[in-house]
Amino acid sequence: MQIPLARRILEANDEAAEELRKRFAEHRLPVVNLMGSPGAGKTSLVEETLRRTSGRLRIGVIEGDIATSLDADRIARFGAPVVQINTGGICHLDARMISEALESLDISALDILLIENVGNLVCPAQFDLGETYRVAVCSLPEGDDKVAKYPEIFSLVDAVVLNKLDLREHLRFDLSLFGRSLRELNPDADLMEVSCSTGDGCEKWIEWLEQRLEQVRGGDGASP
Amino acid sequence: MQIPLARRILEANDEAAEELRKRFAEHRLPVVNLMGSPGAGKTSLVEETLRRTSGRLRIGVIEGDIATSLDADRIARFGAPVVQINTGGICHLDARMISEALESLDISALDILLIENVGNLVCPAQFDLGETYRVAVCSLPEGDDKVAKYPEIFSLVDAVVLNKLDLREHLRFDLSLFGRSLRELNPDADLMEVSCSTGDGCEKWIEWLEQRLEQVRGGDGASP
Repeated sequence: MQIPLARRILEANDEAAEELRKRFAEHRLPVVNLMGSPGAGKTSLVEETLRRTSGRLRIGVIEGDIATSLDADRIARFGAPVVQINTGGICHLDARMISEALESLDISALDILLIENVGNLVCPAQFDLGETYRVAVCSLPEGDDKVAKYPEIFSLVDAVVLNKLDLREHLRFDLSLFGRSLRELNPDADLMEVSCSTGDGCEKWIEWLEQRLEQVRGGDGASP
Repeated sequence: MQIPLARRILEANDEAAEELRKRFAEHRLPVVNLMGSPGAGKTSLVEETLRRTSGRLRIGVIEGDIATSLDADRIARFGAPVVQINTGGICHLDARMISEALESLDISALDILLIENVGNLVCPAQFDLGETYRVAVCSLPEGDDKVAKYPEIFSLVDAVVLNKLDLREHLRFDLSLFGRSLRELNPDADLMEVSCSTGDGCEKWIEWLEQRLEQVRGGDGASP
């Protein structure tokens, strides 16, 4: 029973996601779906992005959480337009939730839209949000075996941001093993090693984001 | 559509879980469902448990993962009976999977059964495995806001093992805030601060486990 029902839900989501994708393309707006475990540093990466692009890029943020507005409160301090979605127990964002959130966001006034998904390395992979790019945020304390153990999410991302590099000397984490397992699974994914705590490496992430913006603006508006 | 369908799946799971619960009670076997984010240290806690109880307690392990047998391989080194479940993309263990795993485990020869759930701080909360006790494994690098942001799982656990205490001086983590938010949400949950890396605090976890064993053995065999 479970499989056909699940498929129907996913198909309905895919239709709503296609609508969103068209809308984002009309605005030539790059939309980035940030996915990762609880505490990987997704919100910290969004904060660092806002800090480094302030006055230069207009970035809007959709924050997805099971409960609380803790993350949106952190983002609002930067003056960026932000909408908090509380899923009320649901383990992922879906396209319908994004459509509703867009009622409170003027996307024509944005250069980039960042969507922070619910902290979960599994379920968000199955729900297309109409995004232009998918990014996994992973962190050193989670361990260097995560690509092998959670292949679905790492196989569909355009980039991986590996965070908390500042803890490197206190952990057993094999950076080359992590990079190798990602390349084997998903050779096209870019890998950026950063510390949102010290700021190290974050400039590569900002460059990556700016290149995506050029790609969407310079292209035909369709998703890549 | 989604809600009644989901309910039917959950009801079917609850029936299977009740069967398991009766079976565990007949054997007076404490069964602990370990839940937590990817990389929180669930497998490390199981390893530390086996190391400290070797020759004294007969502990069996069921390892739940999306993919790979990396965790079961780690456990097998200790000579403990272990069964790996690969969910193939499913974000949680369910009671049916446990029933199947028990075909490969002689539970009459065990003192304790540890079930390591899929790394996920959301979905495992909804699926009863017939366990006697539920434990959340959480770690300092995940941040001190996790109880507030993932209330469902923390509200139903009997204990929280807060791991990676050895990284404390390198992180901004407010231990008293974490403890306070747990007590407010779930006053009955025990909280143990440990480092599976240095072993610090792990003796409290072993004591907790031994007390649960006494409770189940001394009691009427029913779940508490």
